[in-house]
Amino acid sequence: MRAAIYHGTGDIRVEERPDPEIEEPTDAIVRITHTAICGSDLWFYRDHEDPEEGTAVGHEPMGIVEEVGEAVRHVEPGDRVFAPFSVSCGECEFCRKGLHSACTNIDFFGPDGEDVDGAQAEKLRVPLANGTLVRVPDRYANDEDALEALLPLTDVMATGHHAAVSADVEAGDTAVVIGDGAVGLCGVLAAKRLGAERVIAMGHHEDRLDIAREFGATEVVSTRGEEAIEEAQELTDGGANHVLECVGAESSLETAAQVVRPGGNIGYVGVPHVESADFVQQLFFKNASFTGGPAPVRNYADELMNDVLQGTLDPSPIFTKTVDLDGVPEGYQAMDNREAVKVMVKLGE
Amino acid sequence: MRAAIYHGTGDIRVEERPDPEIEEPTDAIVRITHTAICGSDLWFYRDHEDPEEGTAVGHEPMGIVEEVGEAVRHVEPGDRVFAPFSVSCGECEFCRKGLHSACTNIDFFGPDGEDVDGAQAEKLRVPLANGTLVRVPDRYANDEDALEALLPLTDVMATGHHAAVSADVEAGDTAVVIGDGAVGLCGVLAAKRLGAERVIAMGHHEDRLDIAREFGATEVVSTRGEEAIEEAQELTDGGANHVLECVGAESSLETAAQVVRPGGNIGYVGVPHVESADFVQQLFFKNASFTGGPAPVRNYADELMNDVLQGTLDPSPIFTKTVDLDGVPEGYQAMDNREAVKVMVKLGE
Repeated sequence: MRAAIYHGTGDIRVEERPDPEIEEPTDAIVRITHTAICGSDLWFYRDHEDPEEGTAVGHEPMGIVEEVGEAVRHVEPGDRVFAPFSVSCGECEFCRKGLHSACTNIDFFGPDGEDVDGAQAEKLRVPLANGTLVRVPDRYANDEDALEALLPLTDVMATGHHAAVSADVEAGDTAVVIGDGAVGLCGVLAAKRLGAERVIAMGHHEDRLDIAREFGATEVVSTRGEEAIEEAQELTDGGANHVLECVGAESSLETAAQVVRPGGNIGYVGVPHVESADFVQQLFFKNASFTGGPAPVRNYADELMNDVLQGTLDPSPIFTKTVDLDGVPEGYQAMDNREAVKVMVKLGE
Repeated sequence: MRAAIYHGTGDIRVEERPDPEIEEPTDAIVRITHTAICGSDLWFYRDHEDPEEGTAVGHEPMGIVEEVGEAVRHVEPGDRVFAPFSVSCGECEFCRKGLHSACTNIDFFGPDGEDVDGAQAEKLRVPLANGTLVRVPDRYANDEDALEALLPLTDVMATGHHAAVSADVEAGDTAVVIGDGAVGLCGVLAAKRLGAERVIAMGHHEDRLDIAREFGATEVVSTRGEEAIEEAQELTDGGANHVLECVGAESSLETAAQVVRPGGNIGYVGVPHVESADFVQQLFFKNASFTGGPAPVRNYADELMNDVLQGTLDPSPIFTKTVDLDGVPEGYQAMDNREAVKVMVKLGE
């Protein structure tokens, strides 16, 4: 089979690799039909992190089950499925609690994986298939529009939702969403879906803020630095009770601490890349709650899928470019240059 | 009148100052009968902060109302009262929400105050007396045991309670309390009071950990660094769902991030003095909630006072030394040398 392989900074190549095989009775082999390139893939692409050369990449798998181990009950060959960016058993304390991203048997698709490969490939072995895979109902299994709307549930839509849940967004609330990347845009969608009356999207790219408006943002703030903070504070009369921090940079965490209202809640979902902890004192003096982390995608998948399939949730506009497997290197470039919000990779039907 | 005055690092003197007078119709003048020296007073005493020389200090006032402005309804001359470390109006959005420590009219007793003086003094002007002062019921107004048990409600007992509330401690829970200072000890008391089944106190001083046991700690961890973290993780089979961080040092925040269970809650109440934000990534990957700040003491005062007066809450064992007003400089020394957990200052009846 062919798969996208990391060869160093800015160097992704599509190469021949051995087909995956069932190794454990709980494994499934999935023929990938759809996958995507994630903003978090840019961390290693830009060399902020350093996976070994020759590592397979990608962590947003959707496809058709080809083969299952003998302990797999939840899916069978021919099923259309998707999987979160991480493997989860569904049985441990944390899975039972809905925190699948802390599963005691966790593993990660892509370069962070210990015993799993990348999803930007023709095929993928999925361990713990009973716990990990989400089955798309047969009625929608070949509905291309539905599949493209479901694909973001593998990561970014569930992550935006996690930001909104962590920020405690409820009906009637005012929420500020920091970041106009795919996760921030999904955060807007998630906040609206949870009933937020006002959603203020903060970002720097007019084309992305247009998508934010399409997703339900009632106001946008496109200025930078202090000016943006002042604007957001003015719009919220001193700060919002619910802030979704969807970037993870030091500046965006500081912005979150500045625009949150005393006693408010920050939900943060970008891996925090911070040197200085100045924002922590601001959180403290505001008594603001700071909650987040890797989204328990598997926990949210059924709930979000229901909404997609009933037509009330459609994050697919975040895909502003589509490539085939050979186009994956070009897709990374487009995301790196910010020419695309998010790139879909279509491998077949 | 006489008052304790800051004159630089390690230099507190008791000096003559003009008597306070009613300045606003909402003011009250309180003759101080009891006050205390706080661990947070050591920040300026040790010169980590830098108030102007000549500033009056202390922020834990209890006494008898001497005089009130014409708009004061809530108390009258002769009443026994105490006040939180900060002034609050009781009327703004944040007071109404129970977050008096974010009152839009806030001011702080002691060196951080803008328009108020220190409580380690014979008399104190209390602004916004209707919102700020807590009246002790007449029946207990001259009950010395009750008064000494109520005095910690001005700050440390309410702060320990805030840590427990922020850490979401409920009946049956297991809680870890980091820090064996007065606030940490009150955190143990607060966690037990909220029904925690197991309370693990982490500290370095055997005499203080004895008080922790007296206050209900079921286990103590007195080792340091990595060893302490491992011990706490072992006792909790991988971390506790509820962690009270009652210090504010970088090492204790790191300990909190290490001993919290994935998906758990950290309540932190020590002003965070941190340079590096390493612990933030740990919070992130654990999806731990991080909540806290200056305690809304006024919000908790009535609830905690009820328990003290009915005899089910007594934080007074934290006072391991008592001085009179002339003894305040010696009291600071005793706290600075860790000879006393907390010093009570008794000025009269």
